[in-house]
Amino acid sequence: MTHNIAILGASGYTGAELIRLIAGHDGLQITALSGERKAGQAVAQVFPHLIGLDLPDLARIEDIDLEPVDLVFAALPHGLSQAIVKDLPGHVKVVDLGADFRLRDPSMYEKWYGRAHDAPEIQPQAVYGLTEFYREEISSARLVAGTGCNAATVQYALRPVIAAGVIDLDDILCDLKNGITGAGRALKENMLFAERANDVMGYSLGGMHRHLGEFDQEFSAIAGRKVEIQFTPNLVPVNRGIHASCYVKGDSGAIHDILATAYASEPFVRVLPFGQVPNMAHVAGSNYCHIGVVGDRIAGRTMIVATLDNLCKGSSGQAIQNANLMLGYDETTALSSVPVFP
Amino acid sequence: MTHNIAILGASGYTGAELIRLIAGHDGLQITALSGERKAGQAVAQVFPHLIGLDLPDLARIEDIDLEPVDLVFAALPHGLSQAIVKDLPGHVKVVDLGADFRLRDPSMYEKWYGRAHDAPEIQPQAVYGLTEFYREEISSARLVAGTGCNAATVQYALRPVIAAGVIDLDDILCDLKNGITGAGRALKENMLFAERANDVMGYSLGGMHRHLGEFDQEFSAIAGRKVEIQFTPNLVPVNRGIHASCYVKGDSGAIHDILATAYASEPFVRVLPFGQVPNMAHVAGSNYCHIGVVGDRIAGRTMIVATLDNLCKGSSGQAIQNANLMLGYDETTALSSVPVFP
Amino acid sequence: MTHNIAILGASGYTGAELIRLIAGHDGLQITALSGERKAGQAVAQVFPHLIGLDLPDLARIEDIDLEPVDLVFAALPHGLSQAIVKDLPGHVKVVDLGADFRLRDPSMYEKWYGRAHDAPEIQPQAVYGLTEFYREEISSARLVAGTGCNAATVQYALRPVIAAGVIDLDDILCDLKNGITGAGRALKENMLFAERANDVMGYSLGGMHRHLGEFDQEFSAIAGRKVEIQFTPNLVPVNRGIHASCYVKGDSGAIHDILATAYASEPFVRVLPFGQVPNMAHVAGSNYCHIGVVGDRIAGRTMIVATLDNLCKGSSGQAIQNANLMLGYDETTALSSVPVFP
Amino acid sequence: MTHNIAILGASGYTGAELIRLIAGHDGLQITALSGERKAGQAVAQVFPHLIGLDLPDLARIEDIDLEPVDLVFAALPHGLSQAIVKDLPGHVKVVDLGADFRLRDPSMYEKWYGRAHDAPEIQPQAVYGLTEFYREEISSARLVAGTGCNAATVQYALRPVIAAGVIDLDDILCDLKNGITGAGRALKENMLFAERANDVMGYSLGGMHRHLGEFDQEFSAIAGRKVEIQFTPNLVPVNRGIHASCYVKGDSGAIHDILATAYASEPFVRVLPFGQVPNMAHVAGSNYCHIGVVGDRIAGRTMIVATLDNLCKGSSGQAIQNANLMLGYDETTALSSVPVFP
Repeated sequence: MTHNIAILGASGYTGAELIRLIAGHDGLQITALSGERKAGQAVAQVFPHLIGLDLPDLARIEDIDLEPVDLVFAALPHGLSQAIVKDLPGHVKVVDLGADFRLRDPSMYEKWYGRAHDAPEIQPQAVYGLTEFYREEISSARLVAGTGCNAATVQYALRPVIAAGVIDLDDILCDLKNGITGAGRALKENMLFAERANDVMGYSLGGMHRHLGEFDQEFSAIAGRKVEIQFTPNLVPVNRGIHASCYVKGDSGAIHDILATAYASEPFVRVLPFGQVPNMAHVAGSNYCHIGVVGDRIAGRTMIVATLDNLCKGSSGQAIQNANLMLGYDETTALSSVPVFP
Repeated sequence: MTHNIAILGASGYTGAELIRLIAGHDGLQITALSGERKAGQAVAQVFPHLIGLDLPDLARIEDIDLEPVDLVFAALPHGLSQAIVKDLPGHVKVVDLGADFRLRDPSMYEKWYGRAHDAPEIQPQAVYGLTEFYREEISSARLVAGTGCNAATVQYALRPVIAAGVIDLDDILCDLKNGITGAGRALKENMLFAERANDVMGYSLGGMHRHLGEFDQEFSAIAGRKVEIQFTPNLVPVNRGIHASCYVKGDSGAIHDILATAYASEPFVRVLPFGQVPNMAHVAGSNYCHIGVVGDRIAGRTMIVATLDNLCKGSSGQAIQNANLMLGYDETTALSSVPVFP
Repeated sequence: MTHNIAILGASGYTGAELIRLIAGHDGLQITALSGERKAGQAVAQVFPHLIGLDLPDLARIEDIDLEPVDLVFAALPHGLSQAIVKDLPGHVKVVDLGADFRLRDPSMYEKWYGRAHDAPEIQPQAVYGLTEFYREEISSARLVAGTGCNAATVQYALRPVIAAGVIDLDDILCDLKNGITGAGRALKENMLFAERANDVMGYSLGGMHRHLGEFDQEFSAIAGRKVEIQFTPNLVPVNRGIHASCYVKGDSGAIHDILATAYASEPFVRVLPFGQVPNMAHVAGSNYCHIGVVGDRIAGRTMIVATLDNLCKGSSGQAIQNANLMLGYDETTALSSVPVFP
Repeated sequence: MTHNIAILGASGYTGAELIRLIAGHDGLQITALSGERKAGQAVAQVFPHLIGLDLPDLARIEDIDLEPVDLVFAALPHGLSQAIVKDLPGHVKVVDLGADFRLRDPSMYEKWYGRAHDAPEIQPQAVYGLTEFYREEISSARLVAGTGCNAATVQYALRPVIAAGVIDLDDILCDLKNGITGAGRALKENMLFAERANDVMGYSLGGMHRHLGEFDQEFSAIAGRKVEIQFTPNLVPVNRGIHASCYVKGDSGAIHDILATAYASEPFVRVLPFGQVPNMAHVAGSNYCHIGVVGDRIAGRTMIVATLDNLCKGSSGQAIQNANLMLGYDETTALSSVPVFP
């Protein structure tokens, strides 16, 4: 069994990560790669670390023949996927890595992304791509909407404890330390090496970050009531990784038990022994998410720390995991490699 | 007017920072430097960036003649200063950069540092060294206890708002991102480059960090009641800097006003316009502390971010600032250089 | 077919890299791990990124039962392998990752390592482990001596051109930029993050570096005359990678042709198009070596740049590649994963 | 005595460094700052580390009143200074930090920069700005052409030994490790943090780098014959610094003597004891250049290593040093601060 794969937006970091992972997947065959500004170039010109792989050159999307394609990974800038996915042939399955189909309510999309949804008619087909919690729906989906990388990290920490009803839903505060690749490969002055080295910078502060749309949607649905969290991302001078410190009010022992139980059978989510928290570097280059729980000297206060690699488990690894389900492969295919440390 | 200075513990990073700053101070003359394991070496062997300065070689403490010394900076490992300071000649003023005299109550010292205080009889002389809040006492002190670097950062953010009574004192949460030099120059496996590069690591979690002793002491005194905060430091791969995200419950506009007013005349503490927060890198190499305030989409939630250079404003710069007061110099002498960026 | 593997010295970085790679190898089963100072600890305590793998705890070497072991990887500090390997049961194959068996002439070992060889009687069995050039001997060897990581990098650049007789053998100069993990996990002040961040430092300069023993041995043998090169390693603030700039006198077009031909069929050594040179980051986490050749405005001057990951192709990946040959596996087994970038 | 200063191109890194240094200079007063794309913004918006300084906002060049200005620092992109300097009022002295006036022969400018010189008529006025070697001419110059940062570093290593005639002029090879800020603040994909972190990248290889024009001009003039060197810059993930390994053929003892003598009285150039070489980090943030000399096991081979901070001694510090001479200040004014380490 093999399936033909197209990657739209292959000249960005999540595109490169998809190619890296698919190179180790016996069932998937890349037959088309798009990259608008770099159309015509070989992949090894755009990403020299991918030299030696047997890959098509980058092309413009309109020049790609999608007939033989079984599944498309869309790693496009926000706002471009909706119109493109809408017009794809019906037999093509889609894993979208961007934000275009994450929010079920098109008005919420408009609120958080500042533009009208271009394909509200297919939004209902989209399954939210947090694999461990939407496994069945993903298996039968045509269109899966990959989660935000921050959104994935925090949800791994919080979904089971929100569901269990053991924390104060009005007082959840998440402070994240974020690797720089989450900002993508676009040219911005504040993403230059000289600006980001030796620095920590908070951004999208005070409830402005778009991933809050996902949190609101998911946590409120789980809780059966409106849940709004506080959420602060901070760029740190690391390439890969998210380290989410989630501060909640609830019993730390109970919270650890709930998380340990929830993920006991999960291949990629690991809960550390109580009192230990994970480091960001210890999941880099892998599809693993590590979670730790510690109490505080103040009774009833708990910190849950979750870490993952934003390019892998937070984006492209998640996408492959979902594609495995959609195409009938074992969910872990091509995703079990050990983190690269140091 | 010149004063003779001895630095005890000059082979560590805070010692080197003292030497760097004193090199630009016309009134201070370094006449003795101690460094136990490196006694006999020239400073430029231990710190090649200090080559060319006219400095005495490192010596053992017992070989230093303290008679001509006016002021000692003690940058010793925790626990060593108490016995040494106790035996110093009475005419020698002392700025201690370590933790030995920070806690007024010796039982609190024992609680947080796990050992009995070696000089409880001189503890009452010690003035807590957060210059902006103890200026008068410092000016006339013989012994000043430099604050912890985390302790300084968070206090700049919180002291005025706690004093003003505008935040919930039972719900203060501080998540810090810390440069690696705060760990000093001691040999520890987890301080190797290979371990700290590309990583974020929380430590002393859940109310275990010793700087909590300072917070408890100071904040409770200001509030007139017991105040305990949550406090999480996280190592990020940066050499210099602390970035403290302090989450409080209170009106963000009022909090900004209070901070802006409190520091309006301070030479080294700057409050940014409302809604802006500082980056860690923008104070590196300087004695400045930058503070920013943002609100949240959830009414009544406020984040105060304070940044400073842990080696300078958080330690050696603070020490010089205090020494300036103790010796009669203008408080800003040798401390006004602009941050080094990028 | 499976083989039982023991790793001696598993608590260092090359040990961790062996475990990472073996985790993806269906034929190899780790049955024993040694780590003297950390004996008794679980691997995940020593290397949290390896959590979840089914591995024995670290033990002292003398407590390991070598009877069921087919092959030992010895990743020990220099000087310890000789005595240990000498006493291993005869059925156990050995890949030594250290320097103990690299130099065929024990007097050269003594010259470069400052101590007498502890097992000169088995030195003649040792095959030098640069796979691409000793493939046959390695396949039938009992004891393979892994190369130095610098030694591997430079030899990939130079062996074919020295063999071809197209460069001036008296004027070869190699300037290397080296990732920090090459220094291992030992505690040294100048390997602290604070010292290595933001710095470049040359070391073992002027013909003192021990890998020169390997260069002298190998290049002289190829050339059939004494060949001595100039060689300067420089630490750069990167974890993984060696970037070797090899300056030679010879025609750059001819040199490129020779290298391209020499490595045309090699699975792990890739020669870039003429005029392009590789970046260090583009081989990180992989077993690939990239080579580029450029000419100069001065006719007859050529720069050959070779890059590899010191922990993988330069050490543990090479070790697995050799073990694959020794145990009858396809040489590339468990080594084909794509570099991890960014 | 005070002088009015304008900085053209103040929104780049060398502009920021000029402002930082001038803030510590009692004689210089900044009265105008230009920044085309950021005209109208306050300096603290463009460089938050400069908050609190009393500075004019950024303006377009044509909106600046140059009448009251005594000296202009031109930190403009290459190619823009010529036309602007040509039209400056006659009383305005100029220190150009770019490449526009470095090459005395306009045909060489055209060769290396690929465009005709826009102001050949004033080129003869321009004095080459390597202070230690053009001190007298600079003191009386109206127009000083700051050197390239690489060009400065290598010339400090080589000028005295070329002048002394003790090395082979046909075999000089310089391999540089370069901090990223040398590339400026312009938006380029390969200057993103994600691309430069964890990497080493050679560029402008094989005799293409424009600073070769300066080397050719200066070294040939010193030697009285044509001298062409090999020169390879390599980007390393550091913000500030150049580490130049200069390989020459000549007696290392003699070379060290020559350098030690040449710089014995220089305030900013320090020659280390024979056999020691400098680290890049130990000059960061300062106007010092450190030089070391080591021999090789091969007799007659010598490595000279020179390090400096590209933004300071390699550019803006040099510019201030020259301005000090041009305006009658002590040459070291505002430049003596100690390097910032770690």
